[in-house]
Parts: sequence; structure tokens; C-alpha cells
Amino acid sequence: MEISMSDPYVSRTDRSAAIISRREPVVYGEGQYAQALSATQLADYQRDGFIVLEDLFDAQEADALLNEIRSMSSDPAVTRRDEAIREPGSDAVRSIFRVHELNARIAGLARDPRLLHVARQILGSEVYIHQSRANMKPGFKGKEFYWHSDFETWHVEDGMPAMRALSCSVLLTDNNECNGPLMLIPGSQSQFISCQGQTPDENFKESLRKQEYGVPDAISLQLLAENGGIRTVTGKAGSVVFFDCNTMHGSTGNISPWPRANVFMVYNSMENTLNPPKYGLAPRPDYIAARERIEMLEPLEAAALST
Amino acid sequence: MEISMSDPYVSRTDRSAAIISRREPVVYGEGQYAQALSATQLADYQRDGFIVLEDLFDAQEADALLNEIRSMSSDPAVTRRDEAIREPGSDAVRSIFRVHELNARIAGLARDPRLLHVARQILGSEVYIHQSRANMKPGFKGKEFYWHSDFETWHVEDGMPAMRALSCSVLLTDNNECNGPLMLIPGSQSQFISCQGQTPDENFKESLRKQEYGVPDAISLQLLAENGGIRTVTGKAGSVVFFDCNTMHGSTGNISPWPRANVFMVYNSMENTLNPPKYGLAPRPDYIAARERIEMLEPLEAAALST
Repeated sequence: MEISMSDPYVSRTDRSAAIISRREPVVYGEGQYAQALSATQLADYQRDGFIVLEDLFDAQEADALLNEIRSMSSDPAVTRRDEAIREPGSDAVRSIFRVHELNARIAGLARDPRLLHVARQILGSEVYIHQSRANMKPGFKGKEFYWHSDFETWHVEDGMPAMRALSCSVLLTDNNECNGPLMLIPGSQSQFISCQGQTPDENFKESLRKQEYGVPDAISLQLLAENGGIRTVTGKAGSVVFFDCNTMHGSTGNISPWPRANVFMVYNSMENTLNPPKYGLAPRPDYIAARERIEMLEPLEAAALST
Repeated sequence: MEISMSDPYVSRTDRSAAIISRREPVVYGEGQYAQALSATQLADYQRDGFIVLEDLFDAQEADALLNEIRSMSSDPAVTRRDEAIREPGSDAVRSIFRVHELNARIAGLARDPRLLHVARQILGSEVYIHQSRANMKPGFKGKEFYWHSDFETWHVEDGMPAMRALSCSVLLTDNNECNGPLMLIPGSQSQFISCQGQTPDENFKESLRKQEYGVPDAISLQLLAENGGIRTVTGKAGSVVFFDCNTMHGSTGNISPWPRANVFMVYNSMENTLNPPKYGLAPRPDYIAARERIEMLEPLEAAALST
């Protein structure tokens, strides 16, 4: 195995687990690139690695988006695509990738100023969509997502150079404490947890269903959680969570009758486009990690928003 | 298959799922048999099917109990017994049954007036322990318990005649929204959900690890949850949840670093001792369902409590 010694964020090598301090800022350019969040909100994001904006979209907007997702989930033209990921041991669609290209309304969402300017402000640059997906955690049998840092995967499997990306999760159903809401570890964005275990080729086919590589060790997780606690994000449909690409997060299963759906957009800085993956891994498909089609996002006009 | 037509709570037959109204009271004898809960608390229990008494035991008491459970969990003399149940696919002990007979301190807990008089008051009679167990839901990998009514199992597999039993769960670690706390459906005690699927013999060996029979159907659960909502029980170590034998409950997995431990006692009325199991099933072992050794519980003297 060839390891570039200049990589500050080595992971999944034959080394043991390690905690590595973050090098990059969390908020770039002191949040001056765009105007969206207040100084207090930026400070919260900087400290915690995430921020929740309640009711950023109204109930009608959230409903309209949910309807799009539901239609797509039962549309064979979508569900037979590679972009549609099923629950382990079931035919139910768990995630659909690249929704911002498969669906016009969600394309508009990606360019909605309420999301886009937050991303531009925090990342201090123009941005593009590294990945988008809709997640449906069905009632009764929604499976857990174990703890992970997205950046760990994106760095190793996609060759994302630096921590200059963020995710936003738009809640499309009410998230309560019973339906497996997102859990985040405040402050975890400041530490990179290097994981044990080498990655097999084409890992993504399984890892999207059940993660086996890039899994942080128990001691590191314990340390992060003892330091920062765990924050559970509950809120009404239309609320949005923005979180740093390195913030440790996960969610438990959902045995409640209430499905939990969200649309998830990853904004990456135009100055942080992908290198080749680490360790000679084959690149993952473009619908999981945009490499070929990089398009700088322009905000939607106000006129388009009102439709 | 022979079905007694006089059984009001038929379940696991070749019939389809059904919702059957409860016949028995929730609080017996109008709560006059003993003095423990206030009239308001009794009314809450009657309406919801459970009540949470916060800090019923102090931190030292909870700690002392937790230490007993921990010692037992690593004591080969205990863990090699049938009473010790392991996590699916793991050697970690998930539950230990009959803890009130295996451990002197927990024997005292079963007779503690703070628990015993609540049980006597609600059940309107003298009581005995139908089942006791310690549950350890470990950090990171604690598995979920899907929704179930205990009475459904006890009625079918143990021949418990009537809904005249209650459980109390003594929290031995803090239960927060992240570590897979108990979830209950308020009001569900008033409906018996008859389940589909016939029970194989010796089902208990698997069902304690993963429930496959006596699983309520999605439509009934949806109806119960839409009517009553779902209540998540969070609280400090030493808090106690009392809940009716027919209250629908479950819990999600625990990916937090914080283990969740409790001691669980089932008090049954001395007037509700077991009949033979239904459908010619073999009786479950006495450590799961007391049949041979029925001992009416006397409250501990105040002197014994202070040790």
C-alpha cells in the first residue's frame, strides 16, 4: 500500500485508529463571502459543527417536496436506476441519489437562496453539489445509520482534499425523538477520527446499505461524546440542519409508525474539487460523488421561487 | 388446533390480526388496597397505562444496584446459567432473569415498599414476582426491542389468565433520548392486539433474543400511536416506570456510548397465577414465568432498607 506522507488525514490504512486535529477553518473567510447567517449563528456553527434553522421552509413547501420524493420512490423509471438504494433485506427504497438532477423541483431547491447563500457564506467561495439524495426512513422498520464523519469517506473514497464542504438536511416530515432523528456530536468537527481497516474496491455498493469501513472506534467516539454530548435534531417539516462535512453523526432505527424523510444536499467549495481516490481505489460513480459534472450554482431568481 | 372459545384474548391462531377491548380494570379495587400513589397518580396510570416516578431511589441506591448487575454480568457462575441471555451475534450479556433470587440486594428490591405497595395498590391484592430480570443495553451496539404487549406473550406462552400484572423498570443508568430509552404508547393498555402467526414450541429460546411471534401488526400499531402518541421515558438513574402488562412498548437501538441498564420486576396478583399455556405449548422455564415457586411478597422492614 502506498501512502502519501503529505496527507494530513490518513485513514483505513494498516495503522491503528487515531485522532488528528483539524487543519482547516470551519467557517471560511470569517463568513464575509455572503450574507445569510447572523454573527451569532456563525459562532454556533463554528463551535458545534452544525446549526438548525427551524421552519426555513413552510409547510406547503415541505409537502410539495415530500410529494416529489414519494412519486420518485414509486416510479419504476427511478427505482430501477442505480441511484435508488434499497433497505437491507427489503425492496423498500431507502435513498435516491442525484435527486437534484432527476427532479426539477429539487434542482430548484439546490439553488434556493435560503440554502445556497448559507453554504457560500460558510465555505467562503462559490459552491457546487458534491452529492444529493433523498432519504426515506420508513416507519416500523427504518434501520439505523451508525456514527460516521462524511468527510472520512469522501476523503478516502472520493479524494476530497480538504474539509471545505457541508451538508444540509431539509426535513420533509416532522422529526421527533421517536422516529430515528439525526444525532450529532457537537464539537466533533474539530477532530478527524482516522479509522482502521482497509477498503475493498466497490465498497460503496455495500456501504450505502450497511457501513463496514470508515467506522470510527469506540474509544474515539466515547471521547467525542463525553466532551461534546450528543444533540438530537427534532423539528417540524421544513426545518433545515446545516452541518460540517466532518461532524460526527448517526441515527437510530425507526420503530415508530411515522416515516422520516429528508432531502440531503452536499455543497462543496469550487476550490475543493475531487482528486483521485486514495490507495488506488476506483472512483465511485458520479451520482455519489460529482467528478465529471461540476457546475457552479447560481441562486434562483425570486420569481422562480414563488412558483 | 384447539381454541377455547371462552378465551377473550385469542392470539397467534390462524385468524387475522384483531383489536379486542380490554375486559379487566387497569386499577383494581379503585386503588384502595394499599396506600402508595396519590389519586392523581392513579388517574394518570389508569388513563396512560403507565406512570414514571422520578428519583424514587437515590443515586447511591441506583449505583449499588448497578454494581450488583455488573458483577453478575461478568461472573461465570451467573453467565453460564440459562438465566443469562446474550445479544444476537455476540457474547455480551443482554439480560439476566430471576435476578431477585440470584442476588440478595435485588431480592430486597423486590420487597421494597416503594415498589411493592404501588403494585399491591394497583393490582388490588397481594402479589408475587412473575418474572424479574436485569437488562443491559450496551453502548454502541444495543439492539432494539420491537413493539410488544407483555401480556400477549404471558397469556399465550405462560397461560396468565387476566390483565392483572404490572412491570416496573428501575433505571440504573441515566436514560436520555439517545441511548434507546423505553417508549410507551399511552392508552394502549385498553386494547388487546391479537397477533398473527402460530407459536412454535420452545419459542422462548429465540424470542428472548429476537421476537418473531406475538408481533403486533402495523395497522393496529399505527392506530394506537395516532390515538395516544408515543411517550419516551427519560430520567435519572433511580427513577422508576410502572406500566400495565398490556401497555404497548418497545425501544430503539443504542448507538450512543452510554449503556442503558435497568432492573425489571413483574408483579402479578396472587389471584392471577398461571394456567397451562395455550394451544398445548410446553410451559416456559420457571425463571421466565414463575409457576412452581409462587411466594407472596412481604414488604421489607424499615431496618432492612437502611442497610
